[in-house]
Amino acid sequence: MEAYLDNSATTRCAEPVIQKMLKVYREDFGNPSSMHTKGLEAEHYVREAAAAIADSLKVEPKNILFTSGGTESNNTAIIGTALSKRREGKHLITTAIEHASVASPMKFLEEEGFEVTRIPVDGKGQVDLEKLKSAIREDTILVSIMHVNNEIGAVEPIEEIGQMVKEKNPKTLFHVDAIQSYGKFRIRPKKAKIDYLSVSSHKIHGPKGVGFLYVKNPSALHPILFGGGQQDGLRSGTENVPGIAGLGEAASLAYGNLEENRRHLYELKEFFTGGLSEIEGTVLNGPWGPEGAPQIVSASFEGVRSEVLLHALEEKGIYVSAGSACSSHKRAPSATLSAIGVRRDLLESTVRFSFAVTTQKEELEYTLDNLKEILPRLRKYARR
Amino acid sequence: MEAYLDNSATTRCAEPVIQKMLKVYREDFGNPSSMHTKGLEAEHYVREAAAAIADSLKVEPKNILFTSGGTESNNTAIIGTALSKRREGKHLITTAIEHASVASPMKFLEEEGFEVTRIPVDGKGQVDLEKLKSAIREDTILVSIMHVNNEIGAVEPIEEIGQMVKEKNPKTLFHVDAIQSYGKFRIRPKKAKIDYLSVSSHKIHGPKGVGFLYVKNPSALHPILFGGGQQDGLRSGTENVPGIAGLGEAASLAYGNLEENRRHLYELKEFFTGGLSEIEGTVLNGPWGPEGAPQIVSASFEGVRSEVLLHALEEKGIYVSAGSACSSHKRAPSATLSAIGVRRDLLESTVRFSFAVTTQKEELEYTLDNLKEILPRLRKYARR
Repeated sequence: MEAYLDNSATTRCAEPVIQKMLKVYREDFGNPSSMHTKGLEAEHYVREAAAAIADSLKVEPKNILFTSGGTESNNTAIIGTALSKRREGKHLITTAIEHASVASPMKFLEEEGFEVTRIPVDGKGQVDLEKLKSAIREDTILVSIMHVNNEIGAVEPIEEIGQMVKEKNPKTLFHVDAIQSYGKFRIRPKKAKIDYLSVSSHKIHGPKGVGFLYVKNPSALHPILFGGGQQDGLRSGTENVPGIAGLGEAASLAYGNLEENRRHLYELKEFFTGGLSEIEGTVLNGPWGPEGAPQIVSASFEGVRSEVLLHALEEKGIYVSAGSACSSHKRAPSATLSAIGVRRDLLESTVRFSFAVTTQKEELEYTLDNLKEILPRLRKYARR
Repeated sequence: MEAYLDNSATTRCAEPVIQKMLKVYREDFGNPSSMHTKGLEAEHYVREAAAAIADSLKVEPKNILFTSGGTESNNTAIIGTALSKRREGKHLITTAIEHASVASPMKFLEEEGFEVTRIPVDGKGQVDLEKLKSAIREDTILVSIMHVNNEIGAVEPIEEIGQMVKEKNPKTLFHVDAIQSYGKFRIRPKKAKIDYLSVSSHKIHGPKGVGFLYVKNPSALHPILFGGGQQDGLRSGTENVPGIAGLGEAASLAYGNLEENRRHLYELKEFFTGGLSEIEGTVLNGPWGPEGAPQIVSASFEGVRSEVLLHALEEKGIYVSAGSACSSHKRAPSATLSAIGVRRDLLESTVRFSFAVTTQKEELEYTLDNLKEILPRLRKYARR
């Protein structure tokens, strides 16, 4: 049996997504910038995808900017805001548990003379709203907060935060990294007063190499890639038409069955966390109940190094992540796990299990059975 | 009959490229950053593609940086150099006929306080080497010159230029936009003393949304996208594995048959320019003989607006470009055509025909026949 439980790292492309892309690759391969029919045909796919995505967020297609993925979406929102608003202020706010694609551009901006405040979180990964509120200043140009944490599945109250940001300073822009939440949650950017929202395609059974940024006010965004002026000058470069078409299809699939998918994922989570709780020396991290994201379970296993466990599980066809696999091969202790106060001896004993809508209960039973068999063995070796 | 003669805008994906990508999409869909087998399998495709590309340039795989396409490659070389070398100098040199993905980041840098010198070209689009030489200063951090011009097919002497740049100032970096030349020319970055070389996948029958930058000295490059530290921190973001695998396959196909392909393309060019010369009121632009690129023919048709001709040809299944289709829907007179001194009355009467290795002589005969039929008709209407 195989149990791929690393869906927060990447997902398998859905077959309807592949079929859609194949049609573009083989037949409608034009450049949307071309003035002839082949260009128009290609542009049609881009418009169709923008419409499907806009519909999923209840916004307009003109607010959807296609990028090369989540990292570019986050960089565009953060560095783009710095470029467009630097005369109004040089202060940005984020949290202690952001993904590297938010944390790193923030660090770059610090080197460029901007000031960044990082808000701490509690033991469940919830952002400290009081500290956030008091951190917002007259010169705060951006607040960037993730919706769902990629390591522990903490869900931040983005509607409450959006309201708070705009009340404290209506000129402060609000960016939400929704890379782990899009396709799993109903998101209403207008209601949550979101200015920028980042999404990656390959986390929702779409292709790698594409994503989008919801942009509330396109005329105010400063691009970070310059060239032929595609997408109204906001993101130059020939549109990745097959990728965009695939992303549109993946978005439609995710939101066409959202409630059913969520129910399935929460059932998996309940079953799996229940099983884990019965395994001696296991500590569940973050919000492992229904208050957390449906697809992510973080667990620490006392006395076992996560890498060793990962490889032992792999031999059984079970694929999991040690920390967050989105950050290339990094072995530094996770900032998120430290921020929520995971015991020092458990920091490097933590594994993330992440489900997809295609995950079956049998795979989780198989995983639990193997954990029960493997863990005592690994602990015995470790003690020697 | 159909004649797709807009291959410099984009090409159809080759079937072996599609098959390669399908395998990745369906089977080996892992994230290269994952520590388990699925990650390693995915990483294998990235390594394989880097090796194939490195072989085509006679460089090392570690010098190949994957990007989201030609625009990002050019932006990375130019803005990355500005970020890494700004303390050593703020002067950059480019030419009057660059693609927008070079010209626009240069303009952005000017707004940021850098100084940009644009070298003029002669009537055939050849860069003025004397002017270039005298423009290189102590504080010149980058010279960025395209290899093959996308509108007229002019070929710049990059080896001579590389030599000249390094002789005048060894610290000046040399960037070559090879987006229209890679796959059509043997390129030797080491011999030409190139520091950065930009390539796009979808111009060589690979997928859209991917490209690469040859980087001579990876440790000296400053990234422009920040995040999980993929590709040694030089380009964060989950690698577009299927796209990269497709690009690698496309590179192998292009360089596996380079001489044969070039011969075929030059035969097409000779036949087509010969046919065009016989059509009254037709002016060929740029280097239309063997000194130019094999795949690009630029022609102006007196008394006919290029857009009108484009749509008339389109009705016959013939697809061409009015100016350069890489720049989204722009209708401003072409900077390249102006720079080579195309007569004012012909600037908006110019069409680009661009071939692929799959283009057949019959398609060109068909196109010539239709031009002979359409042009007198359009001129008659225009005169009324």
